[in-house]
Amino acid sequence: MERLSIRTNRSTELVDITGQVQEAVARLGGLDGVVYLFCPHTTAGLTLNENWDPDVQRDILLTMDGHIAPPDPRHRHGEGNSPAHIKATLVGADAAIFVEDGHLQLGRWQGVYLAEFDGPRQRQVWVKFLGEKRPIQP
Amino acid sequence: MERLSIRTNRSTELVDITGQVQEAVARLGGLDGVVYLFCPHTTAGLTLNENWDPDVQRDILLTMDGHIAPPDPRHRHGEGNSPAHIKATLVGADAAIFVEDGHLQLGRWQGVYLAEFDGPRQRQVWVKFLGEKRPIQP
Amino acid sequence: MERLSIRTNRSTELVDITGQVQEAVARLGGLDGVVYLFCPHTTAGLTLNENWDPDVQRDILLTMDGHIAPPDPRHRHGEGNSPAHIKATLVGADAAIFVEDGHLQLGRWQGVYLAEFDGPRQRQVWVKFLGEKRPIQP
Repeated sequence: MERLSIRTNRSTELVDITGQVQEAVARLGGLDGVVYLFCPHTTAGLTLNENWDPDVQRDILLTMDGHIAPPDPRHRHGEGNSPAHIKATLVGADAAIFVEDGHLQLGRWQGVYLAEFDGPRQRQVWVKFLGEKRPIQP
Repeated sequence: MERLSIRTNRSTELVDITGQVQEAVARLGGLDGVVYLFCPHTTAGLTLNENWDPDVQRDILLTMDGHIAPPDPRHRHGEGNSPAHIKATLVGADAAIFVEDGHLQLGRWQGVYLAEFDGPRQRQVWVKFLGEKRPIQP
Repeated sequence: MERLSIRTNRSTELVDITGQVQEAVARLGGLDGVVYLFCPHTTAGLTLNENWDPDVQRDILLTMDGHIAPPDPRHRHGEGNSPAHIKATLVGADAAIFVEDGHLQLGRWQGVYLAEFDGPRQRQVWVKFLGEKRPIQP
């Protein structure tokens, strides 16, 4: 299992980790199979979405933060970050991506994102590979 | 890896792909393990839900399109389809289903759906199987 | 495949099943790999979130039930539980968690929850393990 370390810089933010995931697959020797990503936090998650126009990420956060799970005076959780917990549950903590010939198989416009909902913080993403691995060089 | 090709016919639509997934598992020789589905698009996703009353699918889309992620004049993405990107992030791009004796293991009322949020389009769903495979016939 | 049986007691509820999942991994002999959870229902799902302050679970349900997918007179599904179907699609039917040395790998504050959206009912969660297993004792 690889542990990626990701620094977030804003309270809510989509951080493109596609390159770091590809590097982790290489370190794990993944050749043909499935790479799993797991976010061990309860106020952040993982999502795939467009990696071309940054306005897509901005619009996703605008709607999630302001419309889908806004602050609510009826929330009771003492830390005051219940909207972040709700958004983490909506995007989910895991992702599975196919690997062929050692390469992540993504759609043309897809990137892999850590979804920060209660930053800025130091976050982790755990990575595991199941399938056929590269033979170890002697 | 199998690549399913799916034609969607409306701007938003839940297309039942359960039969195509079962056929892909058979082609991949899957006997006992996990079949993974991956949607390589950023304005569509994958979900499991009721395959009996079509009103369930209609109601899901009614609420997602009109209430959860409606058009918003503050969205900036030039293509104007930010609600589709948001809904793709909410339902997710992947699914994992168990296979036993070569058969998809689903609940009694469950079907597997491609969730189209920016159609009509030609879409793909990628399918991979990990686990015990059928011996190849000589 | 293990089948967990879970009794829910309220119409909507997050039931902590972390201990039952860990026990299922032990029964399956899981040592190092990935454990998959699958919810074979269309009005319930699976999610990971904070297992410390119960107000987090309360606030998640408050917002999901009352704000994100409230009852809507335009819903047509005859059983009247369309909000439950919508929430099941939002949280998802599956989860994948890493296992090392036979132990579930979770973040410090994470628990695994069955998300009941149309209870009370008797529910199932299916569990499968892929990876290296404990040698069988002679």
